[in-house]
Amino acid sequence: MNRTNPIITLTTDFGLADGYVGATKGVILSNIPTVTLVDIAHDIPPQNVTAAMITLQAAVPYFPPETVHLAVIDPGVGSSRRAIAVKSNGFYFVGPDNGIFTPWLDPADAVIELKRQGDNPVSPTFHGRDVFAPAAARLAVGEDIFSLGKAIDDPVFLPIPYPNLDGAVISGQVIYVDKFGNCYTNIRSEDLEGNRVTCVSIAGEEISWLALYFAEAAPGDLLALINSSSYLEIAINRGSVAETLGIKPGEPVTVKLKQDG
Amino acid sequence: MNRTNPIITLTTDFGLADGYVGATKGVILSNIPTVTLVDIAHDIPPQNVTAAMITLQAAVPYFPPETVHLAVIDPGVGSSRRAIAVKSNGFYFVGPDNGIFTPWLDPADAVIELKRQGDNPVSPTFHGRDVFAPAAARLAVGEDIFSLGKAIDDPVFLPIPYPNLDGAVISGQVIYVDKFGNCYTNIRSEDLEGNRVTCVSIAGEEISWLALYFAEAAPGDLLALINSSSYLEIAINRGSVAETLGIKPGEPVTVKLKQDG
Amino acid sequence: MNRTNPIITLTTDFGLADGYVGATKGVILSNIPTVTLVDIAHDIPPQNVTAAMITLQAAVPYFPPETVHLAVIDPGVGSSRRAIAVKSNGFYFVGPDNGIFTPWLDPADAVIELKRQGDNPVSPTFHGRDVFAPAAARLAVGEDIFSLGKAIDDPVFLPIPYPNLDGAVISGQVIYVDKFGNCYTNIRSEDLEGNRVTCVSIAGEEISWLALYFAEAAPGDLLALINSSSYLEIAINRGSVAETLGIKPGEPVTVKLKQDG
Repeated sequence: MNRTNPIITLTTDFGLADGYVGATKGVILSNIPTVTLVDIAHDIPPQNVTAAMITLQAAVPYFPPETVHLAVIDPGVGSSRRAIAVKSNGFYFVGPDNGIFTPWLDPADAVIELKRQGDNPVSPTFHGRDVFAPAAARLAVGEDIFSLGKAIDDPVFLPIPYPNLDGAVISGQVIYVDKFGNCYTNIRSEDLEGNRVTCVSIAGEEISWLALYFAEAAPGDLLALINSSSYLEIAINRGSVAETLGIKPGEPVTVKLKQDG
Repeated sequence: MNRTNPIITLTTDFGLADGYVGATKGVILSNIPTVTLVDIAHDIPPQNVTAAMITLQAAVPYFPPETVHLAVIDPGVGSSRRAIAVKSNGFYFVGPDNGIFTPWLDPADAVIELKRQGDNPVSPTFHGRDVFAPAAARLAVGEDIFSLGKAIDDPVFLPIPYPNLDGAVISGQVIYVDKFGNCYTNIRSEDLEGNRVTCVSIAGEEISWLALYFAEAAPGDLLALINSSSYLEIAINRGSVAETLGIKPGEPVTVKLKQDG
Repeated sequence: MNRTNPIITLTTDFGLADGYVGATKGVILSNIPTVTLVDIAHDIPPQNVTAAMITLQAAVPYFPPETVHLAVIDPGVGSSRRAIAVKSNGFYFVGPDNGIFTPWLDPADAVIELKRQGDNPVSPTFHGRDVFAPAAARLAVGEDIFSLGKAIDDPVFLPIPYPNLDGAVISGQVIYVDKFGNCYTNIRSEDLEGNRVTCVSIAGEEISWLALYFAEAAPGDLLALINSSSYLEIAINRGSVAETLGIKPGEPVTVKLKQDG
């Protein structure tokens, strides 16, 4: 039941200035000295579960099957918030039950509430180290997910706003701003399928075509494209649209379509 | 004498924008291609030895025995500041003799001043790459620490202020602010043992009870708790107490106790 | 033709808040589960090819032969900008053809324009994940570089300004500011060889000697030295010269020499 090349990824809001990432890695290595630890992201904005989910969405699909994805963005630590492990789409996930794994919850092969393991003291403020890391290690070496706790059927889902589709007009909003100031909207490529975009409106600006890549716009110019995670994204070539137009998550976006045929 | 799964951790103030971390890792991998390199932290505030020490304190205890912890926060590089290796508590440490390893210096199994190795040129400004990394690699493969230099008995200790215990009143101070703006004080859980906290005073505010976890306070509210590194910590649930109250290291903290029995 | 300990390094401007680094790592690990992935830097200033080149210059020489260095600072992604692989100086490099590998292009054993591989869809905005990562994986397991595409003889070089040498006076400029605010100039140690520096002028300040290490200057004082990458560097001991004097890349620097003998 041992996996040959166990991989555990880490996604946190811990930053790289404190010892929290190190402690979590230490626990994992103490359990599996041969594990491959992979830093996905540690600069998730503090306690921003939506940002963490979008980061996971961009990275998770590219890992080998049976990779264990450990995520700690955990504003509710210590409260009645449950700790969960999820098996879905060939991957394992371990973290808080706060919606961070929403894209993999339905359908999932298993969603387990982690039960307290062993006699080690558990810090009420650091479940990443004391609860999630040991559980991730057990999954990474091939232990059955059902041995970690009991199945639950009511995990927390993130209330991600769906765009409104009204004939030839889609009304959505910005849900994420990345490091470059590019703005992800809640409009996905499948929402546009088979149609031509004639106008994207945001913050008083209008974009009349959908680009394939940034360099189609002149440096400093606004553009809209389907990004590498299949979201409709608003950007400025070699600039930050979030800064230039003062855009934050929640900013409305409207897309007009010309239906083909 | 070869270790099977050598692990070397890295704790620096180099950041991830320059080549300093990469050069240090390259030297280690050139010496031990099979080493597991673990990033603990690279965003330690520049030249802040106390912050590095507290980061190490949070992470080090969770690693497997014989892990080598390499730390480079080195304002005195190139001067007469010595380079040291320490064996303590089952771990190895390599870095500058500036107090960064204070918690492991007394007692220690060995404290060694590194002697110049081989004929490679040594940059007078980058001992992390040219002095510490090669020494860490030698320890990681099982070389005896005494082969790296001569024992010394006067390593530098950080002058960490102890809190003043005066009957039912403890007077301490903030010694560290983490990424979330949580404030670590120099008061440890053992300073409170067997007593009930009736008041924690800081920056004109009073907290009348000790929480177990953040979510015990309403979002935006002040709390005090013993954190995951056993320090008394002042925090704001889902906020930054350092920013809200303008707290920096050195800020006085007073704790009133009610002695039981 | 399999390498025993394949190493791939990563140098990007992706930061650690988004999923871009994770996706790139996932692709590599899906191709080579046993690879050693090494983060060199992810906080390169957005789209700053010169900064990335200087970071690579500081780190690359210290890695074992046959290490594959993957770099993604790619303002022209999706346009006609070519994707290249380079074999030079015992190392492999994979990334955009925008000058990022300038120090290794002449001479190089091979410079290859990557041809499209397989049938996987390629995102027009994320070649790091879809083009560079798979190519790096193939090189890391020992595949011949010429199997990845056709040789080219006109790769893009960065227009790095050379200093002007006029007898006893060298006129150069700042080309890079590191995390500590230290300023790298385009003057290299070989430009000074055999001569004594009598004056370094920058931003109205004069430094009359060349230090070996920072601590030769009093804390807060200005100094000039040859840094660990062999650049003439202007710095402030325990401070940021860039911030204190308001220096940015492009700032003129003049060095006066006294020729020996």
